[in-house]
Amino acid sequence: MSQLQKEIAEQPAVIARLLDESWAETERVAAAIRAFNPSFVCIAARGTSDNAARYAQYVFGHALGLPVMLATPSLHTLYHQPADLSRALVIGISQSGAAQDVRQVLADARQQGALTLAISNVADSPLANTAEYLLPLRAGRELSVAASKTYTAQLTVLAMLTAALADDPAMRGELALLPSLAAKTLELSGAISVWAGRYQKIARLVALGRGFNYATACEIALKIKELIYIASEGYSEADFWHGPIAAIDALHPVVLVAPSGATLDSMRVMQADLAKRDADLLVISDDPQTLESAANPLPVPAAPEWLSPITCVMPGQIFAMQQALVRGYAVDKPRGLSKVTVTE
Amino acid sequence: MSQLQKEIAEQPAVIARLLDESWAETERVAAAIRAFNPSFVCIAARGTSDNAARYAQYVFGHALGLPVMLATPSLHTLYHQPADLSRALVIGISQSGAAQDVRQVLADARQQGALTLAISNVADSPLANTAEYLLPLRAGRELSVAASKTYTAQLTVLAMLTAALADDPAMRGELALLPSLAAKTLELSGAISVWAGRYQKIARLVALGRGFNYATACEIALKIKELIYIASEGYSEADFWHGPIAAIDALHPVVLVAPSGATLDSMRVMQADLAKRDADLLVISDDPQTLESAANPLPVPAAPEWLSPITCVMPGQIFAMQQALVRGYAVDKPRGLSKVTVTE
Repeated sequence: MSQLQKEIAEQPAVIARLLDESWAETERVAAAIRAFNPSFVCIAARGTSDNAARYAQYVFGHALGLPVMLATPSLHTLYHQPADLSRALVIGISQSGAAQDVRQVLADARQQGALTLAISNVADSPLANTAEYLLPLRAGRELSVAASKTYTAQLTVLAMLTAALADDPAMRGELALLPSLAAKTLELSGAISVWAGRYQKIARLVALGRGFNYATACEIALKIKELIYIASEGYSEADFWHGPIAAIDALHPVVLVAPSGATLDSMRVMQADLAKRDADLLVISDDPQTLESAANPLPVPAAPEWLSPITCVMPGQIFAMQQALVRGYAVDKPRGLSKVTVTE
Repeated sequence: MSQLQKEIAEQPAVIARLLDESWAETERVAAAIRAFNPSFVCIAARGTSDNAARYAQYVFGHALGLPVMLATPSLHTLYHQPADLSRALVIGISQSGAAQDVRQVLADARQQGALTLAISNVADSPLANTAEYLLPLRAGRELSVAASKTYTAQLTVLAMLTAALADDPAMRGELALLPSLAAKTLELSGAISVWAGRYQKIARLVALGRGFNYATACEIALKIKELIYIASEGYSEADFWHGPIAAIDALHPVVLVAPSGATLDSMRVMQADLAKRDADLLVISDDPQTLESAANPLPVPAAPEWLSPITCVMPGQIFAMQQALVRGYAVDKPRGLSKVTVTE
């Protein structure tokens, strides 16, 4: 069994551990944020962690009305001209906490007077030591180069922080369902290994989502690219109409992240349009009608929409891993990548 | 001659027209922004205009210290839960001014008390009529579906607004050089038609840039995708190390946007790494040494770094157009796209 397979399987337990052990420190951070009363949030992150930042844009905006920008680290590291972040909550997200450019954004922001928070799997890391506050991922060591359990842990930490800031018991109640929803998702995804071989020859893939699940589309596309080295892109369904859809022709594989909720109608319009172009559609959904009209259904259990990115990414993780397996690739150590990437 | 070819050729004249006619209204908008004193900027845009927004992130951050977020239109149109933009300058960028989701972001923001600005080629458009202020593109009608002259006009408007807000005569002096720099760039790009045929069979492409020219990489990748329907992605050079570089193998075409300036050293490190992977490198630069070590040099004239995205995109536009020509595709009307895309 590969490390990646083990780490994917650990996700329900990691999420449960966060919900068991992290509420008190999440409340402390929420109290500090309330006292600081930021005008906006700025998040610095790279790779998979940047997809967690995309989730934060929607979850903080939707529940808290907090505008979220993604940082532009080059302004800090190459141009030495950081923007004014003094009224911002500045969050650095990094599995290893070793990302030098992410750390630099937090160092500059803290010096400007911003409120700084690290979200990291390594409590004694340069990033964690730079930020005023830390929310740990409690995911245990992640040995596979392609991140899985630390991604869903990052989303869970962001969702818990949102619920604490919203001070909403209903949101806490929904979060408590996550470990069982995650376990059910993995169970439903077992069938992927049966038919994954059908995609052994694909050379490109597009993944589409919207709103909360724009992050999911980006993260699934990144897993595919990391693990099987093909051209693979994640898009907002809305952006996809503005040019990129021209690239879709017959048999082009497209993953649609289409759970129930406010985005389902527009995802179904896209599904119908892509079906007319004879694209090869893999559809992640809990909606029976949406799954029924899909060539390749990837069922997930029904979940509150704001938490659905935590479940919906899992069939994508497993599909990407199975593609690496059927191609005979090194699942835990993709070519040309290392676990910790330090860019400046 | 295609419309696209004509519109690409018009770029120096469009830029000159903006510099001749738009300073007074740019100053008026700058005065309103100074009076409003925004905590941050939020930009709503789709497709090519979204790449202009990426440029704004760096040019506003670098010269003005203004943090810039890209809007999340779904929060406005699907979730009806916009974030609090009341302390922001909110800019909508749309060639046609018809993008319904971009308009909705500005309508919500204006109701919240934000300062709103439209940047559009159509003065009597829904977007222009929603915003308090308008900066027109003065580009004349753009008939080709793939945008070219309106993109460089958008960048020029953003650069002029930055110079007005910085109240910096040196920046204005540099802007005055743009029409001749643009003309020189088109002249240097004439040779592309001679060797473009060599790339007639490529099925994928990656474009990399950093800082100011991250936008350029994204826009070149989008032109390629719109015009020749292949898998084509734009990346920040820094993000590319965090996973996507795994997909690069021998002969993979990679466009590097590597003009002189603060990003050149890191772009050259990437160039050396990609050369070791035997990638097929097309390098846009004014630096003789960088061009010399490139398999396919795409020379541009030396330009102030903050304005280099306006010149550096042009060889990419021409390369994409030439690819469509050698493949016998409809240059002005790519399959499955329309000039005005209205998403909600």
